[in-house]
Amino acid sequence: MSLLIRGGTIVNADGEMRADVYCEDGLIKAIGPDLEAPRDARVVDAGGQYVMPGGIDPHTHMQLPFMGTVASEDFFTGTAAGLAGGTTMIIDFVIPAPNTSLLTAYDQWREWAEKSCADYSFHVAVTWWSDQVREDMGTLARERGVNSFKHFMAYKNAIMVPDENLVQSFARCLELGAIPTVHAENGELVYHLQAEVLKMGITGPEGHPMSRPPEVEGEAANRAIRVAQVIGNPLYIVHNSCREAVEAITRARLEGQRVYGEVLAGHLLIDDSVYRHPDWDVAAAHVMSPPFRPKEHQEVLWRALQSGILHTTATDHCCFCADQKAMGRNDFTKIPNGTGGVEDRMSVLWHHGVGTGRLTRQEFVKVTSTAAAQIFNIYPRKGSVSVGADADIVVWDPKATRTISAKTHHQKVDYNIFEGMSVTGNASTTISRGKVVYEKGELKVEKGAGRYVNRPTFPTVFEAVAKVNAARALKPVQRQQEKAAE
Amino acid sequence: MSLLIRGGTIVNADGEMRADVYCEDGLIKAIGPDLEAPRDARVVDAGGQYVMPGGIDPHTHMQLPFMGTVASEDFFTGTAAGLAGGTTMIIDFVIPAPNTSLLTAYDQWREWAEKSCADYSFHVAVTWWSDQVREDMGTLARERGVNSFKHFMAYKNAIMVPDENLVQSFARCLELGAIPTVHAENGELVYHLQAEVLKMGITGPEGHPMSRPPEVEGEAANRAIRVAQVIGNPLYIVHNSCREAVEAITRARLEGQRVYGEVLAGHLLIDDSVYRHPDWDVAAAHVMSPPFRPKEHQEVLWRALQSGILHTTATDHCCFCADQKAMGRNDFTKIPNGTGGVEDRMSVLWHHGVGTGRLTRQEFVKVTSTAAAQIFNIYPRKGSVSVGADADIVVWDPKATRTISAKTHHQKVDYNIFEGMSVTGNASTTISRGKVVYEKGELKVEKGAGRYVNRPTFPTVFEAVAKVNAARALKPVQRQQEKAAE
Amino acid sequence: MSLLIRGGTIVNADGEMRADVYCEDGLIKAIGPDLEAPRDARVVDAGGQYVMPGGIDPHTHMQLPFMGTVASEDFFTGTAAGLAGGTTMIIDFVIPAPNTSLLTAYDQWREWAEKSCADYSFHVAVTWWSDQVREDMGTLARERGVNSFKHFMAYKNAIMVPDENLVQSFARCLELGAIPTVHAENGELVYHLQAEVLKMGITGPEGHPMSRPPEVEGEAANRAIRVAQVIGNPLYIVHNSCREAVEAITRARLEGQRVYGEVLAGHLLIDDSVYRHPDWDVAAAHVMSPPFRPKEHQEVLWRALQSGILHTTATDHCCFCADQKAMGRNDFTKIPNGTGGVEDRMSVLWHHGVGTGRLTRQEFVKVTSTAAAQIFNIYPRKGSVSVGADADIVVWDPKATRTISAKTHHQKVDYNIFEGMSVTGNASTTISRGKVVYEKGELKVEKGAGRYVNRPTFPTVFEAVAKVNAARALKPVQRQQEKAAE
Amino acid sequence: MSLLIRGGTIVNADGEMRADVYCEDGLIKAIGPDLEAPRDARVVDAGGQYVMPGGIDPHTHMQLPFMGTVASEDFFTGTAAGLAGGTTMIIDFVIPAPNTSLLTAYDQWREWAEKSCADYSFHVAVTWWSDQVREDMGTLARERGVNSFKHFMAYKNAIMVPDENLVQSFARCLELGAIPTVHAENGELVYHLQAEVLKMGITGPEGHPMSRPPEVEGEAANRAIRVAQVIGNPLYIVHNSCREAVEAITRARLEGQRVYGEVLAGHLLIDDSVYRHPDWDVAAAHVMSPPFRPKEHQEVLWRALQSGILHTTATDHCCFCADQKAMGRNDFTKIPNGTGGVEDRMSVLWHHGVGTGRLTRQEFVKVTSTAAAQIFNIYPRKGSVSVGADADIVVWDPKATRTISAKTHHQKVDYNIFEGMSVTGNASTTISRGKVVYEKGELKVEKGAGRYVNRPTFPTVFEAVAKVNAARALKPVQRQQEKAAE
Repeated sequence: MSLLIRGGTIVNADGEMRADVYCEDGLIKAIGPDLEAPRDARVVDAGGQYVMPGGIDPHTHMQLPFMGTVASEDFFTGTAAGLAGGTTMIIDFVIPAPNTSLLTAYDQWREWAEKSCADYSFHVAVTWWSDQVREDMGTLARERGVNSFKHFMAYKNAIMVPDENLVQSFARCLELGAIPTVHAENGELVYHLQAEVLKMGITGPEGHPMSRPPEVEGEAANRAIRVAQVIGNPLYIVHNSCREAVEAITRARLEGQRVYGEVLAGHLLIDDSVYRHPDWDVAAAHVMSPPFRPKEHQEVLWRALQSGILHTTATDHCCFCADQKAMGRNDFTKIPNGTGGVEDRMSVLWHHGVGTGRLTRQEFVKVTSTAAAQIFNIYPRKGSVSVGADADIVVWDPKATRTISAKTHHQKVDYNIFEGMSVTGNASTTISRGKVVYEKGELKVEKGAGRYVNRPTFPTVFEAVAKVNAARALKPVQRQQEKAAE
Repeated sequence: MSLLIRGGTIVNADGEMRADVYCEDGLIKAIGPDLEAPRDARVVDAGGQYVMPGGIDPHTHMQLPFMGTVASEDFFTGTAAGLAGGTTMIIDFVIPAPNTSLLTAYDQWREWAEKSCADYSFHVAVTWWSDQVREDMGTLARERGVNSFKHFMAYKNAIMVPDENLVQSFARCLELGAIPTVHAENGELVYHLQAEVLKMGITGPEGHPMSRPPEVEGEAANRAIRVAQVIGNPLYIVHNSCREAVEAITRARLEGQRVYGEVLAGHLLIDDSVYRHPDWDVAAAHVMSPPFRPKEHQEVLWRALQSGILHTTATDHCCFCADQKAMGRNDFTKIPNGTGGVEDRMSVLWHHGVGTGRLTRQEFVKVTSTAAAQIFNIYPRKGSVSVGADADIVVWDPKATRTISAKTHHQKVDYNIFEGMSVTGNASTTISRGKVVYEKGELKVEKGAGRYVNRPTFPTVFEAVAKVNAARALKPVQRQQEKAAE
Repeated sequence: MSLLIRGGTIVNADGEMRADVYCEDGLIKAIGPDLEAPRDARVVDAGGQYVMPGGIDPHTHMQLPFMGTVASEDFFTGTAAGLAGGTTMIIDFVIPAPNTSLLTAYDQWREWAEKSCADYSFHVAVTWWSDQVREDMGTLARERGVNSFKHFMAYKNAIMVPDENLVQSFARCLELGAIPTVHAENGELVYHLQAEVLKMGITGPEGHPMSRPPEVEGEAANRAIRVAQVIGNPLYIVHNSCREAVEAITRARLEGQRVYGEVLAGHLLIDDSVYRHPDWDVAAAHVMSPPFRPKEHQEVLWRALQSGILHTTATDHCCFCADQKAMGRNDFTKIPNGTGGVEDRMSVLWHHGVGTGRLTRQEFVKVTSTAAAQIFNIYPRKGSVSVGADADIVVWDPKATRTISAKTHHQKVDYNIFEGMSVTGNASTTISRGKVVYEKGELKVEKGAGRYVNRPTFPTVFEAVAKVNAARALKPVQRQQEKAAE
Repeated sequence: MSLLIRGGTIVNADGEMRADVYCEDGLIKAIGPDLEAPRDARVVDAGGQYVMPGGIDPHTHMQLPFMGTVASEDFFTGTAAGLAGGTTMIIDFVIPAPNTSLLTAYDQWREWAEKSCADYSFHVAVTWWSDQVREDMGTLARERGVNSFKHFMAYKNAIMVPDENLVQSFARCLELGAIPTVHAENGELVYHLQAEVLKMGITGPEGHPMSRPPEVEGEAANRAIRVAQVIGNPLYIVHNSCREAVEAITRARLEGQRVYGEVLAGHLLIDDSVYRHPDWDVAAAHVMSPPFRPKEHQEVLWRALQSGILHTTATDHCCFCADQKAMGRNDFTKIPNGTGGVEDRMSVLWHHGVGTGRLTRQEFVKVTSTAAAQIFNIYPRKGSVSVGADADIVVWDPKATRTISAKTHHQKVDYNIFEGMSVTGNASTTISRGKVVYEKGELKVEKGAGRYVNRPTFPTVFEAVAKVNAARALKPVQRQQEKAAE
């Protein structure tokens, strides 16, 4: 099976050029002007379009069991929706319940994910601590292609881990060459505020942002950063939503710390007025953590993305339908947390990013694909249109216009947080492992065609970090009386 | 008993003037040029000198039971040493052991303090949490003159309180009009690092700063600030020693939060090279927490003090002699934490502050006396040379030179962290409650002459804070379906 | 003539107390509870009210000849309007035309000001440079009570001074113990932008803010600060209106530089939407420089005021009536720059500052009166309710409500930028030099009753600055070959 | 002529891989494992070594006429020295004297550069302003391959341009799609300080840094950034040497402005103590502007480089021998400004950057080569080891050790600012346009082999900038009375 993408402009994170791309056996085999292709090669006309690495969404939760229900989007439908929007790989999360085995959970998620129609990988969450957890982390890192572990600093009495375990797990990550990641919200403050807000008689979704204000996120981001600084790890902070978190990352990066930040498409574009929507279902549909923020935070996030303080864009795609959200009708703390987005991330980023001059096209590629591949050590196999790379490619039509709606989207959820938004710039053709899986608005996916992507430990940043850590180690002072005693 | 201070220049935090000061019955009765005094009035000649409010040291630990021993300086010797240096009031700490009654501890400390020869007051530490603690805080605030409660974020397995209790206690403080204060170091990280350092075979005092690096303090300062922000409290952070903590306070203050910071004389002038001193006793004599820092932090602290980011200067006076320090000879984590300083704070601040142009004289008065009185709500009774104020006054000779030494100091400890430092600018006469208690190098104190100072709750900043908090409270959304249901 | 203010709560910048105030011969003679007064003393009942130092407006332009016309408010009407609002002193500006004598101009302004009914003083502008200017500065500082000189960094081809002169004048100020002040806008950029905006066909007042964006002010503020840093001066920046300027001051202050900032009541409360008002007269009435800013700048200014980054509040009171503003009907660059406000500053600051919790009452006194007196070295004679001070006092009724309007104000101008604003908290009685000059809504002023206030050079901050500067001076290196040559 | 680089690890800015590189006709023709090469191809063994893009030094001054003499290094010797250190391209400067034609100067420099043995390009300085200058800029940009114009904000009475011209030239650059660059020092302050320092009797090189303190650079950097912000340009600031400049760039970048910063190898590693060296010749050899800075600035520069606040590394290679430096023996202001470095930049960056963990290998490539190519729009032709790129390659031996010395260097100058520094990591083979020009310590260069590199205008960042600028433009307000009048 071979494929020729003809006449487009290749955009990578580091530059652009007019060239054709030839793919075979799932890989990019040649790049150049006016390439010849075998007679039977499939030809994709990319004239007037951009040929870019397929998107990588490093933060999704397909069919997640959470808060008493299970996310409506499964690995098949979810990866398909991604492909429709130009995203050719997801990194999902294995989330073991406290006191259960990381390996068992990992196996369970691998089984669930077999039906995926695009490539995928897994972060694994550390939700508790024991010698067995420590050992399982080693097995996962060394034998199962896991190079990142997630820690929840919120969700008290559920999956939150206290500082004690954060310290232990970060230290373990350093040994393994794996990057720790955190959901940064101070769970104690959230817990306190939830009770306060309910006490004030506020039970609707408007109570959700009141119980998780930006300072709660900023505190936790700063704490995780400081723990990583002391232990000597690189660190990845998921879904930064506010100025306070961005400032914490900015400080750390300007001081030389290797901290990476992710931002969700939703936080860049949606503000917290949604929680006061008169229709409870609409308000509840937006309940996720961290919540959408007052509008002034958006510009901060955009600027951080452009200036390299934030690195990746994701969705935290975790869908719950109206009947699931209804579990919290009388108590906002019981509304399952999560929204969709895997299908629309690329379009909204292009429209509001490239379309406004906030991002160049190359920066767009960086933040939707390349940076995630680099940080999670699968570059240039992923995140790059280059010879030898996986043929995960999106052909992007900068003039194609689309209005986003739950009525027409491919996501398996009854609400779309970008409902009604018109975007210019869309995927016209998506190619996964060398096959056209989406074109002319049609999905052509195959259940189970996606494959698990092993991510090697010890990305090169660990070499730099190791040198810095070594330089910090001190030696004992040899003292006079001690000498005398010898 | 009356007293006339003649011919000096009065320096208050807000200005200066040439005037005499007349005191009677322990109070300042008149201020003006060429005052007449009763024939039998004692006359102090202040010609060519400055007449300033006596110093307030808001952070001392006289005869503290700590780490298996008791601080060598008691309330009598300690307050006397303070008077010799121009400090006329201390605020010490009641520190109940976990699970013991705050009121009982308070009574114990009051008893210990009866022998003081200068005025004193008490912060009370919250080292654990229960309904009884909550109630005792109320009693202390409403009936015992306590308007500040202290929280240790370090000393794991001893007096450290976790975030959960921090939240509860801060909320209680807000109700009571009392200001929460914190010792800001992340106890989990310190605990981890102590083990790591010992594991590296480092058992000497040089391990102390390695186990408590600045980022550990910066993290905790930021966390306490965020908790205060969420709860809506003013906050006072004791002994800020590093850039990281100063930056956390700076951010908060620039955003309008009512955060106050204290700095110790020692942290302004001594760096961490002391811990690598070849003589173990010298190194151990400097063990205190937070530790002395690399030199570059000192300029940051001075600037913060001058620009109003930090407000008060203190000493954390907590003395242990060489034989006590020796408890940790084989394990630095067992060296009792603490150093002296109550006698020298004013001189070293003047010499290195006013003498270099970092501080004006008025700023000197502000940071050694007035600010503490204002924050802890005993101004202008304390911290001011004004009619009606307590006659706690220091006559300051800007030309008097002295070399600091344990051999000559009045402090009851065998080491002086400023040993050998020559300072120009010293107290020539100290007046406590209208009586000369120190002059010409001689103490003339009376055991028990000091009195307990009640500090009223609800300083005026609480009025401003209450308005801000009220404006943050939101109302529930009235929703259509709910309306329909009605 | 004597006066007793009875039953109020005195609020000074450093504290509050319930006490009566007794005034005689224009001075405060006694303060205390239940004061006795001579039988013939006038008694002002201050029950339930605050007794505060009268306001000082450190930035006004009465009857200023500017842009081809003369400001409508003269020294009599202007000082009277101030008194009606609780402001008992102004510091106005002598602005010599380029190439004219500073002394001559100074004499002219002194003559104009003789009709004032409240106290006043003068900053003098340096609008050009020559040896004579240098000499006149000396005369003014040493013999005429001038301790501050103003520099315009904008108004190209008029009163703007280039960097070369800024450097020369700042160096001269340092010798004289006078504080340089600047109007910070980059005049070259303004000039360029004015031309650009006119070229775009925009001739109305909406062009005004477009030609003076915040970055133009931020640049100049930073430049002036750096010049002062190099020369070694303290510095005062007038009418800071935007985040960019505040950030420049913040940086300098946090690094220990003695920089003071002023903010106008208008910039705290009015945003730039006024320039797009459909009524040209309304839009033009708001034309002043720097212009009103987008709303987000206001919170930055408030926070800077509260946290001590900004110090004083003023009005830049400079009134032009509609027929004067009309000079620029076809070209916004010809609209005379200026608005009123001297009457309303205190009320709007109280309502929006104290009323919201942004400021405590003591901070209110600081920013409306005390800080100006301290910086310009007339404290505690002004800016303080204390024995010996001038009896310039406002009795403030925190419950009195008033709606601001040009129809009812005392200012001699046909527009009020706060038109329609309801404020709670107003002057009930104003006392100037011991006489009631305003009460129950009535002015009782006497033309010429105000007196010129000499401001001594070398405020104490110069002592600190001198020490810092001395420490910076280096010595030449003695080199080997040079030694050899000797 | 063909060449195969075998067995190395290719390091580009975005990643690494083990692969061979095949070059032909001056270009890279193939990259892959185990490449076959024609029998007659030259083979370079890169086993155990890194194959990286040749360095680009974007800031050199070969044979510059300056301060009454001419730089000792010419285009032949200078480019050869660069090749010996792994640098395969320089961007030099055309500097017309004020009032002389830009085109004439450009032609002159092109002629001088013909003898270069490595590729080169030219920034052109705007040292004065007229319509002709404006027109010449157009010719240079559109017809001569110049996409960057330089502006000196210092050197008063010589090549300094005032703000007025800065504004005009920046506006012109925007039209042309060329990036303005600045030498940022406030020339007025330097002029004032030079006079002051001489007045103090300091005539030796120690006076040089005293007359150009960091705040003078920080001011100018900030000013240039603000001008670029107002005009709407991207901006490139050369040789940032201090915290103050870095902070100005940081602020701008975090706000979304497209500002790029360069740092010199010397400023990263050498401090200002050199100016107090007892040997005048040594001290004078270090005289360049901006001067070397106090040590604490170095860490700031390293961090900014690593975190992407600074982008490129250069040398400002501008050599003057001892006899030339001697022109300023009695007056430091007459010492010709400049030092060497083009040969050593790559080694010292690797040793102190990669060797310490401050930089990863990929970041090293970015800051020594790729970023310059991207910013100046010649990427991926330069700055990349990729198929189709120019075969400008360095084979880097990470274990090779060398001690830098003027005795052994190839630079045509009698002093080396890195004298005596031992570095691990050096070029083992340098390839220019597909030919080995340096190996085993031997240069094999050919005079005139280097070619002029045209740099196209309008790099892609201009597309983003144009969108942002367009969004800022406002429309006039249509007013009622105007409507009525119609």
